[in-house]
Amino acid sequence: MALLTASSRRISSSSTSLRYVYLLRSFSTSFREERDTFGPIQVPSDKLWGAQTQRSLHNFDIGGARERMPGPIIHAFGVLKKCAAKVNMEYGLDPTIGKAIMQAAQEVSEGKLDDHFPLVIWQTGSGTQSNMNANEVIANRASEILGHKRGEKFVHPNDHVNRSQSSNDTFPTVMHIAAAVEMNSAFIPKLKQLHTTLHSKSLEFNDIIKIGRTHTQDATPLTLGQEFSGYSTQVRYGIDRVMCTLPRMYQLAQGGTAVGTGLNTKKGFDVKIADAVAEETNLPFVTAENKFEALAAHDAFVETSGALNTVSASLMKIGNDIRLLGSGPRCGLGELILPENEPGSSIMPGKVNPTQCEALTMVCAQVMGDHVAITVGGSNGHFELNVYKPLIASALLRSLRLLGDASASFEKNCVRGIEANRERISKLLHESLMLVTSLNPKIGYDNAAAVAKKAHKEGTTLKDAALKLKVLTSDEFDKLVVPEKMIGPSD
Amino acid sequence: MALLTASSRRISSSSTSLRYVYLLRSFSTSFREERDTFGPIQVPSDKLWGAQTQRSLHNFDIGGARERMPGPIIHAFGVLKKCAAKVNMEYGLDPTIGKAIMQAAQEVSEGKLDDHFPLVIWQTGSGTQSNMNANEVIANRASEILGHKRGEKFVHPNDHVNRSQSSNDTFPTVMHIAAAVEMNSAFIPKLKQLHTTLHSKSLEFNDIIKIGRTHTQDATPLTLGQEFSGYSTQVRYGIDRVMCTLPRMYQLAQGGTAVGTGLNTKKGFDVKIADAVAEETNLPFVTAENKFEALAAHDAFVETSGALNTVSASLMKIGNDIRLLGSGPRCGLGELILPENEPGSSIMPGKVNPTQCEALTMVCAQVMGDHVAITVGGSNGHFELNVYKPLIASALLRSLRLLGDASASFEKNCVRGIEANRERISKLLHESLMLVTSLNPKIGYDNAAAVAKKAHKEGTTLKDAALKLKVLTSDEFDKLVVPEKMIGPSD
Amino acid sequence: MALLTASSRRISSSSTSLRYVYLLRSFSTSFREERDTFGPIQVPSDKLWGAQTQRSLHNFDIGGARERMPGPIIHAFGVLKKCAAKVNMEYGLDPTIGKAIMQAAQEVSEGKLDDHFPLVIWQTGSGTQSNMNANEVIANRASEILGHKRGEKFVHPNDHVNRSQSSNDTFPTVMHIAAAVEMNSAFIPKLKQLHTTLHSKSLEFNDIIKIGRTHTQDATPLTLGQEFSGYSTQVRYGIDRVMCTLPRMYQLAQGGTAVGTGLNTKKGFDVKIADAVAEETNLPFVTAENKFEALAAHDAFVETSGALNTVSASLMKIGNDIRLLGSGPRCGLGELILPENEPGSSIMPGKVNPTQCEALTMVCAQVMGDHVAITVGGSNGHFELNVYKPLIASALLRSLRLLGDASASFEKNCVRGIEANRERISKLLHESLMLVTSLNPKIGYDNAAAVAKKAHKEGTTLKDAALKLKVLTSDEFDKLVVPEKMIGPSD
Amino acid sequence: MALLTASSRRISSSSTSLRYVYLLRSFSTSFREERDTFGPIQVPSDKLWGAQTQRSLHNFDIGGARERMPGPIIHAFGVLKKCAAKVNMEYGLDPTIGKAIMQAAQEVSEGKLDDHFPLVIWQTGSGTQSNMNANEVIANRASEILGHKRGEKFVHPNDHVNRSQSSNDTFPTVMHIAAAVEMNSAFIPKLKQLHTTLHSKSLEFNDIIKIGRTHTQDATPLTLGQEFSGYSTQVRYGIDRVMCTLPRMYQLAQGGTAVGTGLNTKKGFDVKIADAVAEETNLPFVTAENKFEALAAHDAFVETSGALNTVSASLMKIGNDIRLLGSGPRCGLGELILPENEPGSSIMPGKVNPTQCEALTMVCAQVMGDHVAITVGGSNGHFELNVYKPLIASALLRSLRLLGDASASFEKNCVRGIEANRERISKLLHESLMLVTSLNPKIGYDNAAAVAKKAHKEGTTLKDAALKLKVLTSDEFDKLVVPEKMIGPSD
Repeated sequence: MALLTASSRRISSSSTSLRYVYLLRSFSTSFREERDTFGPIQVPSDKLWGAQTQRSLHNFDIGGARERMPGPIIHAFGVLKKCAAKVNMEYGLDPTIGKAIMQAAQEVSEGKLDDHFPLVIWQTGSGTQSNMNANEVIANRASEILGHKRGEKFVHPNDHVNRSQSSNDTFPTVMHIAAAVEMNSAFIPKLKQLHTTLHSKSLEFNDIIKIGRTHTQDATPLTLGQEFSGYSTQVRYGIDRVMCTLPRMYQLAQGGTAVGTGLNTKKGFDVKIADAVAEETNLPFVTAENKFEALAAHDAFVETSGALNTVSASLMKIGNDIRLLGSGPRCGLGELILPENEPGSSIMPGKVNPTQCEALTMVCAQVMGDHVAITVGGSNGHFELNVYKPLIASALLRSLRLLGDASASFEKNCVRGIEANRERISKLLHESLMLVTSLNPKIGYDNAAAVAKKAHKEGTTLKDAALKLKVLTSDEFDKLVVPEKMIGPSD
Repeated sequence: MALLTASSRRISSSSTSLRYVYLLRSFSTSFREERDTFGPIQVPSDKLWGAQTQRSLHNFDIGGARERMPGPIIHAFGVLKKCAAKVNMEYGLDPTIGKAIMQAAQEVSEGKLDDHFPLVIWQTGSGTQSNMNANEVIANRASEILGHKRGEKFVHPNDHVNRSQSSNDTFPTVMHIAAAVEMNSAFIPKLKQLHTTLHSKSLEFNDIIKIGRTHTQDATPLTLGQEFSGYSTQVRYGIDRVMCTLPRMYQLAQGGTAVGTGLNTKKGFDVKIADAVAEETNLPFVTAENKFEALAAHDAFVETSGALNTVSASLMKIGNDIRLLGSGPRCGLGELILPENEPGSSIMPGKVNPTQCEALTMVCAQVMGDHVAITVGGSNGHFELNVYKPLIASALLRSLRLLGDASASFEKNCVRGIEANRERISKLLHESLMLVTSLNPKIGYDNAAAVAKKAHKEGTTLKDAALKLKVLTSDEFDKLVVPEKMIGPSD
Repeated sequence: MALLTASSRRISSSSTSLRYVYLLRSFSTSFREERDTFGPIQVPSDKLWGAQTQRSLHNFDIGGARERMPGPIIHAFGVLKKCAAKVNMEYGLDPTIGKAIMQAAQEVSEGKLDDHFPLVIWQTGSGTQSNMNANEVIANRASEILGHKRGEKFVHPNDHVNRSQSSNDTFPTVMHIAAAVEMNSAFIPKLKQLHTTLHSKSLEFNDIIKIGRTHTQDATPLTLGQEFSGYSTQVRYGIDRVMCTLPRMYQLAQGGTAVGTGLNTKKGFDVKIADAVAEETNLPFVTAENKFEALAAHDAFVETSGALNTVSASLMKIGNDIRLLGSGPRCGLGELILPENEPGSSIMPGKVNPTQCEALTMVCAQVMGDHVAITVGGSNGHFELNVYKPLIASALLRSLRLLGDASASFEKNCVRGIEANRERISKLLHESLMLVTSLNPKIGYDNAAAVAKKAHKEGTTLKDAALKLKVLTSDEFDKLVVPEKMIGPSD
Repeated sequence: MALLTASSRRISSSSTSLRYVYLLRSFSTSFREERDTFGPIQVPSDKLWGAQTQRSLHNFDIGGARERMPGPIIHAFGVLKKCAAKVNMEYGLDPTIGKAIMQAAQEVSEGKLDDHFPLVIWQTGSGTQSNMNANEVIANRASEILGHKRGEKFVHPNDHVNRSQSSNDTFPTVMHIAAAVEMNSAFIPKLKQLHTTLHSKSLEFNDIIKIGRTHTQDATPLTLGQEFSGYSTQVRYGIDRVMCTLPRMYQLAQGGTAVGTGLNTKKGFDVKIADAVAEETNLPFVTAENKFEALAAHDAFVETSGALNTVSASLMKIGNDIRLLGSGPRCGLGELILPENEPGSSIMPGKVNPTQCEALTMVCAQVMGDHVAITVGGSNGHFELNVYKPLIASALLRSLRLLGDASASFEKNCVRGIEANRERISKLLHESLMLVTSLNPKIGYDNAAAVAKKAHKEGTTLKDAALKLKVLTSDEFDKLVVPEKMIGPSD
């Protein structure tokens, strides 16, 4: 430790850490005063956020800018706050204010105000500060829309924007909205595209008979199409698995308020707001059957993460197989020719690194890890509130994003362009000793074993060995050893 | 290391390890010779197993007797081999032999021959040796039934018992049979019982209003019944989650043989055998849509394990809450009185250790760990075969057993006997400062805050503070502060 | 799925994904042509990167900007390339070029060129593209320094900047540099600060006797200082654990080139470059004993991650204890008063949410998850190269950053300001029934038990019960029941 | 679910579960009465355990016989109780009783009384019941030694055997004893043996030059000895990693009693008992610096488990490489010939399934999973006691046992007998296109690339292509392409 000096500190991230808060500040030419129950605090003039957001920036200097609350959460806050204003107007919220909130919230949902959401994941475990960030930004923006100034609270973050809500029900609600939207709009479509391409490869390769491998050892033959049908089935089941979890993801906590009782809401508020979110997103959201469960646990996230973990196990298997089947060009298995997307080796033609397999399987490992993070967070709730919400939300959203993107990249830049090396496949198949099993009915088990043994010992083909042992003629051999007859049950 | 001497070795397990093989041997007064393609080998005369089993005992001296292949796998082999004999008779197997196999296999399925299955989990990754163990035991037992001697192979382990099968399809098949049977006959019923009891506690406690807690801090009230309704909902969803995975667990690999093609089977064999297993077990097993997937991957196990992982997260939350709500007797929360099942402290009455919560949450941690083991094993298949089968099977079966048993024990020895400490609950509720929110409409936010502040500072009740501040009369206070009105939305 | 329409897509991240590549492009007013062995490609004129970086941007559209390769890796590339140029000059590299490389690399190490490193973690598993990104940026910048244009390759990315190097040895080298620097300059100092503060709290609280709790139940007393000494010991051992892993982290792969043999380097290159890095960073780096291990495995990262996982287990325990001991203000344990950093409840004084504990324990959960990701990646190397390098590096660096920052935040915003609620602690202690054990020697076990039983049943104090049972006088009770005598072994 | 009938229940484990308690009972011809503070209870006459053990059997019917507390824990209780009696005699314990306890405890430590320890892992989280099991068995056995009857409590389980102890310090103490003994007597020696054999293989193969593989693609050559040196280095570092954790494992909690204060012990008791254990085991145990940490956390176990997790990552890599390098015999890489330990395929010679690799890598996956279980348990302690002790202990001991045994099995039945397939290795090396890099200095990069391109396109050797292109003579080619010169840095 004594060795540590300025020079090593120079390249560390700790300075970056410090920089984060001040960086945000330094872009601002001036400041305005915002207030909360703690008193006044200086906020950059060009930012829409208020006092509680600013306080959080100071209190949670953890991880810097790359640890910001994920975009889908911010955008889902936009959706929710818009819907809340709409429903609150039915319950008496001033329509002028309500409409301005809806307009401001719409901007948040469209990502137009992303720069005004500086808070990191690692804050209050209820996500309170991000809820307040949304309330403050929308209140200030709505105030401006109505011709008022930032910080004046003409539209009030708590009384108007957060009306009938609590962080304790809004945050789980946006978690569910964000995850369900990502699943439907990005993740599942990307998996489906991967499935489609694997399936068409399975059809394309249907007539190519190749050696099978079990225990990594030569085994009886199958078609390359059959091999790919296993992959496409894995992905298809993966889609089923993820979709199975949606019914519980569509349940919204909104209306539970502080502890799940719905105190400070009117009867029916929970159903109305779920309806509004469903309409806004075109997804079948409903109000959660039991709000106590919906605040105190995030089992739905643990469950969906479990489905992603299963998909990761599938994709890791597929990615591994494809890189090994494409290994070579000379000293590997060489049955597949993978598309060459970037220089592999500057001098050696044919060295095509399976880089898409590598990116995909790295993502799978990360998803498996994030699944454990989500599980640990999900299991550690206390009483009426689980306070690992931002962790759970961010880890699942990251898994969805990475696994979806990596599947799409793998499909587009690898699977789609895979070609079979028919020559190599045929060569390996016919050199294989496993075909000897076809001779049993004709020459008996003992003779067949003798043929295989001789071929193995002398390094020749089965046919050579059979002819040398004079147990069969060349014609007989060719008639008997027909891999095409070995790829399915017999009649 | 130099310190290591005989004395520390004396209490180690390494001698146990060595003992395992020889222990098995030492119980036998004599030996007979069995043979496989490797040649002859001595087998204890009183055991039904044959040469390949014996060889595995020598080659895999890993973990000793407590690492034996789990019973449900052995019993499922009994089911499968019985069904295979039945179907094989339709395809020409000598009925005398077929019926003897069915009888012997029935004995295996009933657990009567458990002592003849000595192999450990940590063997060939395809489970080949346990398949051969089953074949050898059934062949020898069937031979005896027909009046022949062990080792004579009148009924042949491969040609008769394993007919039309390969380890590569039998082992995944017994994995699915064993898991589906355990889920249906033990795990789900036990979870359902836990759900029923939690639900009836939720009804029993429905009128008990208590303080809510968020961030572990005092929050607005709810009923103890509402709190328990969260728990019962978690368990009910858990049952749904596990049942959602059954459709893929009911798919059997049988008929895929070595690489999934079904080579060496007749068309229709796969469907017939799945039907036979379904009939034998009364569970809706079907043949797997894609046998390549069924041999090369165990995504169905990763998926089911994911469901158990979610259930564990739920139960850990519930177990934690109950132990904390029952903490005390004097210096904890003390809202629940847990049943006293064993001496807690010999002198201090009321020290009831939450031992059932402890056993349950330990099991949850183990299930989370085994889930990672299953995920790692499930993701590491190569080509036509995943060779982590015994690991995956044993870990899932252990999770099912432990989580089911612990749920049952927790239900019976804890939840069922939980009583509410109504006096303590009421005392805490009424001492709480959170009830101040009820005063807002009458005396305004500022006065209400002043009341709370005074009570907090002086350590008095809200009522005392309100009366001292003369903002309300005693009657007014009692009329306004009515927790019963705080446990749901308003009309 | 049919429900999905533009409105849900509007708030998804998929558009963000597409935006990433084009966003980078859109900031650029013009383009220049760069070339690699694949041919020409357009690169934004204002960026220093070259063809291979640009190709990677297109091929790996995974996760967007927040998934960029972490800063410490980029900066470590600066360190390494500077050192490589310095050593290469000793082996004949033109000093004009060498010095320009050193200057450009210095800028990279200082973070001045961060904007020129756009690549994401999810790329080639060897990190080749980030190595090329560094080579291209440094080559172009060095060319400019020498008065040449970008893209001219006056200083060549491969021949000059990457001289005697391969991605296969540079990437593991920068992984080790980045991790070791972060550990020394940020992580360990932050943990030490946390230890110091916990230790001084332990001294500060040394005279405060409180009730102990085991199984969450009341137990014999200890001092609050003793309780905190457990925490500070955990953190101190955590520092030891992390430091124990440094010797293997200080081993650099550089000099192994493509497969570990050192082909294309001169003898002694590996030692010289490790010396140069050591000098540059003031950390005791050495050349790896075995370069094959250093390329093909990342056990050192799995190991360090294991140490961080242990630290996380410690901090999760500490964070949980502190939030529970600070629970209340009225209905929890209430022994600690935590600093109030932000509004907890707008109306209820004393509701101080333990937000720092929440941020800290969320981080711990994430570190546990990333540890699994690192383990999975670390175990999946093949032959001469592990190709999960960017995953492993990014996950460990994230763990180091988050755990360090969260420890610092927890220390500064929570631990430092913790106060003991002496009144509450004393009240609980004296109400406790556990003190009854002190009466045994005087009145015997049976009478003592009777006292406790009476107190428990009637809800009175032990003293009340004892006086009522007339087994002791008030003075005798006070003389016997002295918690001060219960907090250590007797003489 | 409606399908479920008796037939599926027949083969489930639930009946087994019920059977466990009654099975224990059924072996007993008669019963005697034992008592604890809860009252009398029937205990099998032939068993030495007492009332609290019997009660635990009824209350924790979780998992059945295979879930019994691991042997090393039982044996370590023998060691500890013997040492405690010895030290207690110094503090006044009646020597007659003390010596009888020592004799009985010695029998426990030697495994002679294993049948009297029926309790499962899943009990009280403090391990109290196993501590009482040990106290009861030793008390009854010691009473018998002194001519008294079981159940009479002439030697008392609490007053004599457990004197100056609490479950809260004995259980962590036996955890540390058991783990340290297993590490020293079994685990580390087995890993060392594996290291020795890998190292000698590395020397044996030192002259065999082979193709390297990166990204699973052909790369520059190295020797097979170099490749194995990577493996042996991984194992050697693994041993270092495990040994690094021993200093904290040697710290014993004994003397902390209930909450860590040492109440009810005499000063110096903790040091004396650690000395006694050190003498008894010949291992350098010391008393824990801080007893509060030693009871409330099990970071030492999380840490050691982390080291085992790293070793697992190493061994999984090695096991995978060896199975892939040994893949074939015809259609794989085929560079290694693995020993044939059991029939692979009855007809196909040369199909040697890498079964030892499979057992080893399955164990590695299990250890990774158990590491997560230990981490979750380790992070969930509350206040003065972590109550996941039996989980943590059993999972670590299982990891130690399985990983040690599997390493030994792998060493003995696989590594020791590995042979290089020199012919195949040489063929692949010389067919490889990577050797083209040697031609650069002579014929230039462009010509060399043309040679490689032609050879790749036409499927010929580099030499053929070079001769056809007339860029070199045959002699020149042979002089230039010398793999021996490519396996290290140049002078």
